Amino acid sequence: MNSGQDNEARIVTPLTQLLDIRHPVVLAPMDGTANGRLAAAVARAGGLGLIGGGYADADWLEGELEAAAGARVGVGFITFALDERPAALRLALEAKPIAVQLSFGDPRPHAEAIRAAGAALICQVQTPDEVKAAVEAGADVLVAQGRDAGGHGRPDLGTMALVPSMVDSVAPVPVVAAGGIADGRGLAAALMLGAAGVTMGTRFLASTEASSNPAEQAGLVAARSVDTVRTDVFDQARGPAWPEGHDGRVVRSSFTEEWRRSRDEAAASERYWASAPDDYDVRPLWAGEGLDLISAIETPDDIVRSVVDQAIARLRTAGPMVVAGAGR
Amino acid sequence: MNSGQDNEARIVTPLTQLLDIRHPVVLAPMDGTANGRLAAAVARAGGLGLIGGGYADADWLEGELEAAAGARVGVGFITFALDERPAALRLALEAKPIAVQLSFGDPRPHAEAIRAAGAALICQVQTPDEVKAAVEAGADVLVAQGRDAGGHGRPDLGTMALVPSMVDSVAPVPVVAAGGIADGRGLAAALMLGAAGVTMGTRFLASTEASSNPAEQAGLVAARSVDTVRTDVFDQARGPAWPEGHDGRVVRSSFTEEWRRSRDEAAASERYWASAPDDYDVRPLWAGEGLDLISAIETPDDIVRSVVDQAIARLRTAGPMVVAGAGR
Repeated sequence: MNSGQDNEARIVTPLTQLLDIRHPVVLAPMDGTANGRLAAAVARAGGLGLIGGGYADADWLEGELEAAAGARVGVGFITFALDERPAALRLALEAKPIAVQLSFGDPRPHAEAIRAAGAALICQVQTPDEVKAAVEAGADVLVAQGRDAGGHGRPDLGTMALVPSMVDSVAPVPVVAAGGIADGRGLAAALMLGAAGVTMGTRFLASTEASSNPAEQAGLVAARSVDTVRTDVFDQARGPAWPEGHDGRVVRSSFTEEWRRSRDEAAASERYWASAPDDYDVRPLWAGEGLDLISAIETPDDIVRSVVDQAIARLRTAGPMVVAGAGR
Repeated sequence: MNSGQDNEARIVTPLTQLLDIRHPVVLAPMDGTANGRLAAAVARAGGLGLIGGGYADADWLEGELEAAAGARVGVGFITFALDERPAALRLALEAKPIAVQLSFGDPRPHAEAIRAAGAALICQVQTPDEVKAAVEAGADVLVAQGRDAGGHGRPDLGTMALVPSMVDSVAPVPVVAAGGIADGRGLAAALMLGAAGVTMGTRFLASTEASSNPAEQAGLVAARSVDTVRTDVFDQARGPAWPEGHDGRVVRSSFTEEWRRSRDEAAASERYWASAPDDYDVRPLWAGEGLDLISAIETPDDIVRSVVDQAIARLRTAGPMVVAGAGR
């Protein structure tokens, strides 16, 4: 817990109330990179830290849950991977997580176990068609992820209109906005759209605690929003196969551009597996459109604090913009 | 002027102050459909009504300027069309418009004439690369249009992150947010992102005064955000040629889907010109991702009023979300 934190202003929303967290800021459970240390740091800073359980590798998860022990964290999974590897969910639930987030697939088969363990169920959706399954699963929170987001998702809808549309369709279930949000202006804007909080991935990937290597961190700081592109090359070249209609946003590279021209799966696969793990002209440098708003690698604590402080400053300007009716 | 309007609350921003308008709501100058009657109605409701001068057809524009006579309106043009048909700009400036908006092309050759006529220069941009020309032209206002928008634009960047990025790069020039904004939540969110107002196209296209036919209006009310798609089929099939990198968002149709599969220009052109003007399985039903937020055809006055009222209600919730530091 930060010293002095109890005297600082904060933003109260249905999300902070439901999960008993201090700030409406969620760490995206980025597969492999949202490790236990990062999730714990976000939790200690007052946000919701979700370990990136991704493809449900129980061995990796076990180590990260240990690394986060003592902090009130949650875990996120790629749902279709969990269908194949249910042991990872059992492992997560034994650690009594504050929440479990399920993304990309049908959450209904896993909902009862999550609820029985006392964890909040968070379902991430990208389109209206996915809402029914999330509601039927009894989701406590919905994450509405726009195509502006980094990493895997769907290209269908942008954050700006998706969020209020989703708020209307699932009320009173709290909606968290994701995609293109990397500072306090994005948090304040999301709250005006009717969201109860925000998920940030790229901003936390550019933090001291993420499992990101120096080349990746340098790339995140240097690249601009307009340098990102949605592509399915990584799912085609390396597997695992993602369901039809999904792709992901990365920083554009010679690898993504060659794929766009040729869609030569054999060539892409060969080049991928021959590349060094930190060669980001081939390997995926996952990043969202918030990149223009990210200029340094910071601690998770500084990120949460500065995002919340900036959001509070913006929210305090809102009332005074409204004036009584004099003038034209 | 509305009766009683002077007693109603309003939102004051650098945009309302610069242009001496009552509300920070701009009618997108939609080619041909943002007619003089619609622009005048938006102006009388307190917003900025821009006639859609589009491809710079002077004959059409002359009639619409007459239709709007007596209202404080502006005019928007497609810049590259104006390069070929400068007479339309001269005609517009003779009418002493409140502002001229230039989109898609280099605004610099036209800036001096606009300034000399006493009109504010508004430049619409979609990417950071376009900012330099707009700033050099002396733009009084920048419109940052995300790919979420309906009609022509660029697919590069979403509204959510584009707006704060653009605000940072052109400050203190006021930025207007465009793309996926169709209600007061979008206006309030845009203000939190640092914008000084919003441009709405689709919402005003779904109004009683737009030059839209019954089939188009029914389509707008029925279609969902997820039914829209960006395509270049209309520019390829019917011309005029748009510069590389541009496309537009429409409601998906058998025509857009066939093009996506085949990219057969001759077949598309033949089918296009053989279709009835109100056959929206072929003709473009331009629409942005705000469609989910639009459920009826309304008067421009009701649209401006309800958007502003909803934004004010949202902005008034912002301050109370911030509480002193008790709690976790």
